[in-house]
Amino acid sequence: MKLVRFGAPGEEKPGIVGPEGEIRDLSSHVPDISGAHLDARTLARLRALDPAGLPRAPEGARLGPCVGNIGKFMCIGLNYSDHAAESGLPIPEHPILFMKANSAISGANDDVVLPRGSTRSDWEVELGVVIGKAAKYVSEAEALEHVAGYCICNDVSERSFQLDLTGQWTKGKSCDTFGPIGPWLVTADEIADPQALEMGLELNGTRMQHGTTATMIFSVAQIISHLSQLFTLHPGDVISTGTPPGVGMGMKPEPRYLKEGDVMEVWIEGLGRQRQEVRADV
Amino acid sequence: MKLVRFGAPGEEKPGIVGPEGEIRDLSSHVPDISGAHLDARTLARLRALDPAGLPRAPEGARLGPCVGNIGKFMCIGLNYSDHAAESGLPIPEHPILFMKANSAISGANDDVVLPRGSTRSDWEVELGVVIGKAAKYVSEAEALEHVAGYCICNDVSERSFQLDLTGQWTKGKSCDTFGPIGPWLVTADEIADPQALEMGLELNGTRMQHGTTATMIFSVAQIISHLSQLFTLHPGDVISTGTPPGVGMGMKPEPRYLKEGDVMEVWIEGLGRQRQEVRADV
Repeated sequence: MKLVRFGAPGEEKPGIVGPEGEIRDLSSHVPDISGAHLDARTLARLRALDPAGLPRAPEGARLGPCVGNIGKFMCIGLNYSDHAAESGLPIPEHPILFMKANSAISGANDDVVLPRGSTRSDWEVELGVVIGKAAKYVSEAEALEHVAGYCICNDVSERSFQLDLTGQWTKGKSCDTFGPIGPWLVTADEIADPQALEMGLELNGTRMQHGTTATMIFSVAQIISHLSQLFTLHPGDVISTGTPPGVGMGMKPEPRYLKEGDVMEVWIEGLGRQRQEVRADV
Repeated sequence: MKLVRFGAPGEEKPGIVGPEGEIRDLSSHVPDISGAHLDARTLARLRALDPAGLPRAPEGARLGPCVGNIGKFMCIGLNYSDHAAESGLPIPEHPILFMKANSAISGANDDVVLPRGSTRSDWEVELGVVIGKAAKYVSEAEALEHVAGYCICNDVSERSFQLDLTGQWTKGKSCDTFGPIGPWLVTADEIADPQALEMGLELNGTRMQHGTTATMIFSVAQIISHLSQLFTLHPGDVISTGTPPGVGMGMKPEPRYLKEGDVMEVWIEGLGRQRQEVRADV
């Protein structure tokens, strides 16, 4: 089941993707696609609906973030062994956690807006994990039972804000529009193995990133178990699980950063495709 | 005006502190004390009410976090010059930003629960700033116009999770119950100068922290202006602005960390007093 949220920013309605890729309106069956409605029972109820019997969303409706009212937007840094090798960095001993402001969250195809003063904004295709059931002190074996589904995240990052403005990474990760999420929340039953998904990112049609979740250092289950020892993961929380090789900062001989007019296309096997145009804030 | 939220966790009602310190129920005048209701017009409307005409809250009602539905819970690290000197650390060039999970937020007098495996949990009295009007690219001169009010934050911190679990501080800052906020949201009109507030923290009746916001390295106005260059500060966002000397990690000859049965009392001039008992999670 592929769930979406469609409509103007802040006014999104819940929807489901029908058999021909069309969006059907779920408003009369669930108030929103958000933490309060991601439990197994609600998802089973939605799965039992016949999309053909639901009203169609307006043609060309904008897709909002595929989960509404996200509490924590967590990211794991340096989580791909091939990316760590490429960067010449050691394999971390534990998952590296940082937070992205939830005010950075945007729709899968919304413009990415470079903030004033940005000179080193970069892309990162990542597998997003959406929590469906609260998790505290869970084992690796139980961890995936707490996942409602998966989505694409582009963990857009301003490297100067991240690395040159003293300490902690969160400054460069939290700019408005730096968190496109979606297009779909694909429920976990459709993803046989979250550690076997091909993924990539093209910039202006040229492939920049290409990888697979098979080279993650810490698996989705390990990440959930680890974080749940520290604090409660709540329904609707999102974990973005790190990026494979090919970010702009690592390009040789010169890094390549985002500029106005660039187009990013971001994809993960089974989870669809994002497309963002880049604008500079005036 | 001192605003509160009272009632069971997740079911708090809005309230106001009356002339005798009693809590009066604001439910019939505002849905909640939260970002959507912190604009100047709403606050002026509440200020015009006569508390004596409002129903009293039940005697002994629990105080919840003084702001509901907090979007971003931001913290500034190493922001007191006397604390930096005590720690032998250099004065940072820019405000150090990290995020605390908003799921860590709790009421001013709720228990602080040490998570399993915690051995080095610590206290930090901090001035909390609550945003009332969205701020993006604001100057220092304009910054305080975006503040709805102030509150006490205890930025409870698990130092092992913060420093020994690889990278970024957020792990040790985000444990459940590690963000007591309140008791009151004191509106900005009652705080003549946020840079002249005495503050302190007692552990089991012994003073551990004592300082004044006068020794902040970056003022409230500077912090708001700086962060607003990076992303939008939204109404209901909270910034905890750093801690003065006297945290447990810095105690000589031995650090002193929290243990079951400890009682923290946390105060800031004009903003009231918090009291937390410490429990260990079983």
